[in-house]
Amino acid sequence: MSSRVRAVVAGATGYSGRDLIGLLLDHPRIELVGVFASRSAETTPLAAIHPQLTGLTALDCQPFDEAAIAEFRPDLVFLATPNEFSHEVAPALLDAGATVVDLSGAFRLRDEALYPEFYGFEHTRPDLLRKAVYGLTEFARERLRGANLIANPGCYPTSILTPMIPLLRAGLVAVPNGSGGDGSEWQPIICDSKSGVTGAGKSPTADTHFVEVSESFKTYNVFRHRHAPEIAQGLGVANGSRALIFTPHLLPINRGILSTIYVKLKKGVARQDVLSAWRGAFVDAPLVRVFAGAQMPEIKFVANTPFCDVGCAVDEVTGQAIVVSALDNLLKGAASQALQNANVALGFDEREGVI
Amino acid sequence: MSSRVRAVVAGATGYSGRDLIGLLLDHPRIELVGVFASRSAETTPLAAIHPQLTGLTALDCQPFDEAAIAEFRPDLVFLATPNEFSHEVAPALLDAGATVVDLSGAFRLRDEALYPEFYGFEHTRPDLLRKAVYGLTEFARERLRGANLIANPGCYPTSILTPMIPLLRAGLVAVPNGSGGDGSEWQPIICDSKSGVTGAGKSPTADTHFVEVSESFKTYNVFRHRHAPEIAQGLGVANGSRALIFTPHLLPINRGILSTIYVKLKKGVARQDVLSAWRGAFVDAPLVRVFAGAQMPEIKFVANTPFCDVGCAVDEVTGQAIVVSALDNLLKGAASQALQNANVALGFDEREGVI
Amino acid sequence: MSSRVRAVVAGATGYSGRDLIGLLLDHPRIELVGVFASRSAETTPLAAIHPQLTGLTALDCQPFDEAAIAEFRPDLVFLATPNEFSHEVAPALLDAGATVVDLSGAFRLRDEALYPEFYGFEHTRPDLLRKAVYGLTEFARERLRGANLIANPGCYPTSILTPMIPLLRAGLVAVPNGSGGDGSEWQPIICDSKSGVTGAGKSPTADTHFVEVSESFKTYNVFRHRHAPEIAQGLGVANGSRALIFTPHLLPINRGILSTIYVKLKKGVARQDVLSAWRGAFVDAPLVRVFAGAQMPEIKFVANTPFCDVGCAVDEVTGQAIVVSALDNLLKGAASQALQNANVALGFDEREGVI
Amino acid sequence: MSSRVRAVVAGATGYSGRDLIGLLLDHPRIELVGVFASRSAETTPLAAIHPQLTGLTALDCQPFDEAAIAEFRPDLVFLATPNEFSHEVAPALLDAGATVVDLSGAFRLRDEALYPEFYGFEHTRPDLLRKAVYGLTEFARERLRGANLIANPGCYPTSILTPMIPLLRAGLVAVPNGSGGDGSEWQPIICDSKSGVTGAGKSPTADTHFVEVSESFKTYNVFRHRHAPEIAQGLGVANGSRALIFTPHLLPINRGILSTIYVKLKKGVARQDVLSAWRGAFVDAPLVRVFAGAQMPEIKFVANTPFCDVGCAVDEVTGQAIVVSALDNLLKGAASQALQNANVALGFDEREGVI
Repeated sequence: MSSRVRAVVAGATGYSGRDLIGLLLDHPRIELVGVFASRSAETTPLAAIHPQLTGLTALDCQPFDEAAIAEFRPDLVFLATPNEFSHEVAPALLDAGATVVDLSGAFRLRDEALYPEFYGFEHTRPDLLRKAVYGLTEFARERLRGANLIANPGCYPTSILTPMIPLLRAGLVAVPNGSGGDGSEWQPIICDSKSGVTGAGKSPTADTHFVEVSESFKTYNVFRHRHAPEIAQGLGVANGSRALIFTPHLLPINRGILSTIYVKLKKGVARQDVLSAWRGAFVDAPLVRVFAGAQMPEIKFVANTPFCDVGCAVDEVTGQAIVVSALDNLLKGAASQALQNANVALGFDEREGVI
Repeated sequence: MSSRVRAVVAGATGYSGRDLIGLLLDHPRIELVGVFASRSAETTPLAAIHPQLTGLTALDCQPFDEAAIAEFRPDLVFLATPNEFSHEVAPALLDAGATVVDLSGAFRLRDEALYPEFYGFEHTRPDLLRKAVYGLTEFARERLRGANLIANPGCYPTSILTPMIPLLRAGLVAVPNGSGGDGSEWQPIICDSKSGVTGAGKSPTADTHFVEVSESFKTYNVFRHRHAPEIAQGLGVANGSRALIFTPHLLPINRGILSTIYVKLKKGVARQDVLSAWRGAFVDAPLVRVFAGAQMPEIKFVANTPFCDVGCAVDEVTGQAIVVSALDNLLKGAASQALQNANVALGFDEREGVI
Repeated sequence: MSSRVRAVVAGATGYSGRDLIGLLLDHPRIELVGVFASRSAETTPLAAIHPQLTGLTALDCQPFDEAAIAEFRPDLVFLATPNEFSHEVAPALLDAGATVVDLSGAFRLRDEALYPEFYGFEHTRPDLLRKAVYGLTEFARERLRGANLIANPGCYPTSILTPMIPLLRAGLVAVPNGSGGDGSEWQPIICDSKSGVTGAGKSPTADTHFVEVSESFKTYNVFRHRHAPEIAQGLGVANGSRALIFTPHLLPINRGILSTIYVKLKKGVARQDVLSAWRGAFVDAPLVRVFAGAQMPEIKFVANTPFCDVGCAVDEVTGQAIVVSALDNLLKGAASQALQNANVALGFDEREGVI
Repeated sequence: MSSRVRAVVAGATGYSGRDLIGLLLDHPRIELVGVFASRSAETTPLAAIHPQLTGLTALDCQPFDEAAIAEFRPDLVFLATPNEFSHEVAPALLDAGATVVDLSGAFRLRDEALYPEFYGFEHTRPDLLRKAVYGLTEFARERLRGANLIANPGCYPTSILTPMIPLLRAGLVAVPNGSGGDGSEWQPIICDSKSGVTGAGKSPTADTHFVEVSESFKTYNVFRHRHAPEIAQGLGVANGSRALIFTPHLLPINRGILSTIYVKLKKGVARQDVLSAWRGAFVDAPLVRVFAGAQMPEIKFVANTPFCDVGCAVDEVTGQAIVVSALDNLLKGAASQALQNANVALGFDEREGVI
């Protein structure tokens, strides 16, 4: 027991925190030693906050306190805390020598100028923005090894960047001033994404009231969701340009994201080229599954799993591709990817305790 | 237009208020002239509060104000307001000459001593408790005609009393010290009731968060729901005695209640006797439907309708009856029964504007 | 009673048939005289098929039989029957002098050559395809008056054509070889549509099993849904061209469609221009609601209503518009639009019995 | 690898089979060597049947064939097959020397005379009924060790017997002719149980159609569900007597059962006595969780877990207890209990591969 890596979770009362704790309790090489809440003033048994965990842990959840965390001498601190809260507390945790995996957006954007508009606060540590490793695991393994600040990606960005980065890197996608003179056939990358309600957090609001969500469906934050600049950054396009359109929708389900992505391929690119690009990119990526047959990804195949599934349909006459990806927003979109990243940072198999 | 009855709704922002307004906007003999909110400080277009009503009304919803209500010279005031609020405002509205239909619990219990425990306030108008007509329409038509204070029943009580009153009146149910010496086979009337989430109101709470309700199911307020004394009163048994057990549950649906009621019949009573009792009681009750065949009531048959459906299975060997009733908690359990009651009070056909 | 228009519904056992019957039972100027099933061999009380209708009708549902229909001397026949079935039976009904409103796809496409691929049968009556009035009510009132064969539009096409036709007619949308030399900014009209499960019909299949749908979400029939050529026809673009992309998705809800439509506007076109085009087109269209403020259409606002709601967000820098429409697939997408069309054909107010 | 226990699953296409396979693929001491379907004629990759399992297994699912099973030399065969199918194939598998864990009802009832009425077939192996160990793990550990035919309990019975057996054994429940002369206060044990739709199996039927289930709720098989005699057997009361009433209901959720059980306690029995009885019975039962505080069991706490949660409210004045239990019908109600039983039979820790 004592030789295992010592981990602390802050932000234990939310859904991502809860799922992360569930995974850590079962991890063969990491020991969960302490659990903290960002917004609570009382020490409470964790199983009283999340009765799902009854019988699985005797840990108490304590009010967030840096000295109390330090007493646990953690090697690893997961922050499943609000954006501004993470921004505030991460520096001291880093200074204390812990590896910090931040599940919030506090360290995801390289351009600090975007923070006031999209996150509502001034970013005071642009140096950490440059140092943080953006933990889209499948594309960041090299930088993750030994990293001490990991910015765990957003749920929507993970669902979009995972399938799109290999296609862009392989040069399959038509671009505005593309070589081959096919610029006139360029079109924006349009991401029509749909998420379950856990994505909206655990605080009760009019938007998460059962009766307002059930038997309904809606767009929200059109043209102004904070994940848009993160997606643009990952795709390498200018935020706010016509190159990327991202529309989030709220699904009447608990967990899962499905993104339908409309992409204009370069002339002559076929479905097999898309599949080959993915197979190449994910050959050593056990947590991305390429759907190469007629079956397309669906949310039920990934709910409660750490996978990101990708599939596509291509109209080879028009060059139009419809890329479909699915993941569990609390797992590959948050908790399990955080653990996948921690595993890589620590030199473990990325599947340890994840699957 | 001007010869129609003039109605005002207070408590327009909640689900019952919204459904009541929807019905009134279509009523041939009642004109909805004013709409008020109990907890809002601003005048807002009703369609901005309930976008469902866009294009159906140009009414504004005003902050509750007795003088403003008086200006509308209403014949009829519906209170879809909180319990204590109704208790406070009803007397002046009655004094002003309006017929008041109160959808809250403020005037349902005849015994004022029950209010502090079950409603959290001292009742100051026991005279009105005695004067109010308990508007379980099918059993109250005589008293409703010309009534000026109508206590509209609770949703659970309506689902339980509608099928049970005829069986008790017909003497079909075994009772503790029953004649015929069959007292030893007596058992409590056990009401296992399940309600959709609109029954919990529109305020966002941890209990109404989509993620806490969806894919789940639970009991709540076991042995202490405020509808228990109302049911006991309607059945004619002592509140808190073993004669009645009522357990509410929360269903992951928007609207509808189904009650499964376990009843010990007297020796020799058969399913046909139950059906006959119902047929007799509901011969002129167009909004109660007796399911006499193999099909039992289900919530989907009554959702978005003003009906209460009743059915039963009887084990004629053991004398055990399972009575099943279903209704829409916002309609027969609230808004449409309020309108049904208003229709009877005004001398209209009870179906006018209801179906 | 006898002076009312006499109507028959064939295809009474499905969801559209059921909702249509519900509306007709309440119509002040149309009398529902007969009800038929396309696939049943037995006469059954309608309320046994749809217990929702208990107490509302004593009609029996008969096996489909032309002679039996003729005995009812119907003025109006609604076909809520399968595509090929409608194709087969409509001619004789027309010959018998009835006005036929067909809710299937049998008479929607002007090009008979599309039927084998998209509907699985050879169309033998191209003359009727040319004669049939495509009943997107808001754009067809002139032709509907006195029409005797009305092809009621598909649910997805109604949700897409209703908002898009006014924008195309007003010349707001960038087109491939647009005047003004802005062809290079053209992009396809991308329709990302999501439907509830009633759209898949009442037959139990693996795709409609509760467990396969609930807590999930998926695309289906990508690039090959039979509504694609109908949408292309309505938009005036070539089917199968890159000008239109339509992707249907299955929502875990009962009723409702929301379409998110991505459109490139011409240079300088602003959100106000879109709203003006809609206001002009729908000034006398009481069943289309333009959402002109910040609130976007959502399925819950239209479920169980005959409305189509339209709204949009426009990025005026990039010229990108996101058009959002919502309707109830069984009502504006089927039954209520059929009745709206019948009303116009008969010279009634289109809202009669519809709202 | 080779020293692990070799297991085969028959009935791999259903929901219980799928969940059982998912658990076995992760079991440290059991190797899943072969997978069979009871009703399929073709060999198909398991991941094509259950895309959830993509990337987790390369096994093919074969048509059921005794010789093919024998080739795998299994130590353990799980039958997640239909009742009559299990009845037919189990004897030969036993003869071949495998330990058989049957998830169907084929070997649950000790009285073969009940099979024609409740299962629709004559039972030809009453000897095996007597030999089979009824695998309610917590009460059967002794008999399970070394057992070679295990009848895995039904989902509803598990939810009812788990909380009730300790109360009956402790003598807390009023019985008809109870000592102490309190027979007159006796009442039936009334089990009002609610299950998610996976309990109805994977075959598409009108009863499992999304639209028929969603936003609805109903009773089914009142007084004639096949789990009633199994519950009666477990409680030690006569089937069909008034001592037990069991009413199943269908919840609009995927997985989970909650049973609300109404019990008359003997005079003077308090809530603490109930909790003590449970604590005693479950002191070494890691997969039963006693809820001793105000929090009652809810389905969301057990969904996707192998636990059975039990809780109660007691009115100490009337002696009325409301016992609430919750479990996942596919796990503790089927697959995980099957594995728990196999673990005990094989001498492993019962939690191995289960949690």
